[in-house]
Amino acid sequence: MSQQKYNLAILGATGNVGRLLLDLVEQRNFPFAQLKLLASPNSAGKTITSSQGNSYTVELTDENAFAGIDIVFASAGASTTKKYAESIKKAGAVLIDNSSAFRMDADVPLVVPQVNKEDIKNHKGIIANPNCSTAPLVLALKALEKQFKIKRVVVSTYQSVSGAGKEAMEELSISSAKALDNKEHDYKAFVKPIAFNLIPQIDVFLENDYTKEEMKLINETKKMLHRDDLEITCTAVRVPVFISHSESVNIEFEKEADLAVIKEIWSNTDDLILLDKPEESLYPTPLEITGKDPVYVGRVRQDNSNPKAINCWIVSDNLRIGAALNTVRIGEELVKILDSKTCNI
Amino acid sequence: MSQQKYNLAILGATGNVGRLLLDLVEQRNFPFAQLKLLASPNSAGKTITSSQGNSYTVELTDENAFAGIDIVFASAGASTTKKYAESIKKAGAVLIDNSSAFRMDADVPLVVPQVNKEDIKNHKGIIANPNCSTAPLVLALKALEKQFKIKRVVVSTYQSVSGAGKEAMEELSISSAKALDNKEHDYKAFVKPIAFNLIPQIDVFLENDYTKEEMKLINETKKMLHRDDLEITCTAVRVPVFISHSESVNIEFEKEADLAVIKEIWSNTDDLILLDKPEESLYPTPLEITGKDPVYVGRVRQDNSNPKAINCWIVSDNLRIGAALNTVRIGEELVKILDSKTCNI
Repeated sequence: MSQQKYNLAILGATGNVGRLLLDLVEQRNFPFAQLKLLASPNSAGKTITSSQGNSYTVELTDENAFAGIDIVFASAGASTTKKYAESIKKAGAVLIDNSSAFRMDADVPLVVPQVNKEDIKNHKGIIANPNCSTAPLVLALKALEKQFKIKRVVVSTYQSVSGAGKEAMEELSISSAKALDNKEHDYKAFVKPIAFNLIPQIDVFLENDYTKEEMKLINETKKMLHRDDLEITCTAVRVPVFISHSESVNIEFEKEADLAVIKEIWSNTDDLILLDKPEESLYPTPLEITGKDPVYVGRVRQDNSNPKAINCWIVSDNLRIGAALNTVRIGEELVKILDSKTCNI
Repeated sequence: MSQQKYNLAILGATGNVGRLLLDLVEQRNFPFAQLKLLASPNSAGKTITSSQGNSYTVELTDENAFAGIDIVFASAGASTTKKYAESIKKAGAVLIDNSSAFRMDADVPLVVPQVNKEDIKNHKGIIANPNCSTAPLVLALKALEKQFKIKRVVVSTYQSVSGAGKEAMEELSISSAKALDNKEHDYKAFVKPIAFNLIPQIDVFLENDYTKEEMKLINETKKMLHRDDLEITCTAVRVPVFISHSESVNIEFEKEADLAVIKEIWSNTDDLILLDKPEESLYPTPLEITGKDPVYVGRVRQDNSNPKAINCWIVSDNLRIGAALNTVRIGEELVKILDSKTCNI
């Protein structure tokens, strides 16, 4: 338990992830003295009540909002974070950021604590949280990588709309109801209708015809595993699910890997649950694991065509894993470092 | 155009695929003299009106129903087809079957006409139609295989509920409406709720922990490509989409394959449409291609991690491709053979 208390700000406090950040900070007894909720002019002045029943008034984000703050949990999108990063730095606070703004910067640690918490100590004022599809994948891969070197990973994602924000969730609700009623709906959260449809595009397209989302997963996984040589490719698809991301993953190892040992490793990995009893139709589905903290893995089986490879199915609550929960966990590790520095002085 | 006319029966005429078989037979001017719609006792006596406006009375399926019939288009499930296969044979009719009952039998040709119509002539009374995920895949692969030998294929499917029948479509409608209304719904079409969820299980599990659906795709693809050595693996997932199946596919070739040439080949493949302009967000989605005959391919790009591989996204109307349309196409090829035999006599 931390001996110090820290002044904390949540930037983007009214969004999907921001709301969950508040709940998790309280539920996990994050050692805060002051807790400031910051949002855009549209939301400033509103009152937010946490799931623990505490009320907070949302304050306006501006350059002076960070005075006296020690740690900022940000989930406000890349452009907003970039806009305020300098002010946060000037205030002497550490920014733990959910956006893609700084993730691939060489001097910014990109961290899933269970995978590479040792990278946190190299921070220079900013620590980045990975993409919400990357975090569960890298947790599952890292557990195996210690014993079986991974050669190649082929990922197809099935990503829920909550990753695109509250408006996207509302659009899925409203447009689904209209579709069931045989009515047209003007869609705006996505480039195509999402109700009872699939959209194989998340974020914008890059020059190589991959989407930014796909390249995030590819590059962030390599960075966190410290494996520039890892062969990893991805197709990212938006599906009409509210919360939780799923991934169909083919993992090829350098050498043949024993399936029983792989299952044994995953059974003993912290914050990962192997839910895999085909004979009882036990495997994770997004609806069932929403609201849960661990990463769930099921459908683990030898690749029938390659003795060095396996197939599996990974599901996690995207608002927690790779977003709010991972941010708070980074904060908890940071606090341990800050505490120890204070003790040493 | 056929010079002969044939007596045709549709077995399982009241199902999703059966209804479409009737429409396609009429729309494509299939050369039938008599057309008999057969179904279970529950449906016998009902009147069905085709999209062309013609009415038919559904007749009861029994051992004597096939007397005088030349060709049977069956979409009644594996157990029903097995039950009547002998009666169909005794009547001297050729059975073109949509179920999995006979697909892997050594003496039953498994056919997508654009891929292996030459196999039809080897039939011994039964010709099988592949699984609805296999047909579009094998069409796309075959086009490339002629020029670039394929080594390995990794498939993740996103399959609509219509593949599981009309009741499954109703369950998606009703349970989605209830979910939007925050009400519980007893599900029975699938082993888990499908509304706003994903189910990584289609059909039953086999001893190797693959589902029967996954092994169908794997084995049927090898059979139709005449490539027992093809390395192909699959994870099959049910998604909350009404019609059309999608697949995220990684294809590895024996040698480096030029992406421009691959796109050129697919651009010139009959019954396949390359819909791939990322800069205009042009790629196929199930909602947009439902009701269309071709197989659609998009998101074609070099595998960033492997110069010999590509990624792509294949979408097709599962009630047409790999079901009703493919069955009628097999029938059209069969008629050509039957016509030529008649002429030669």
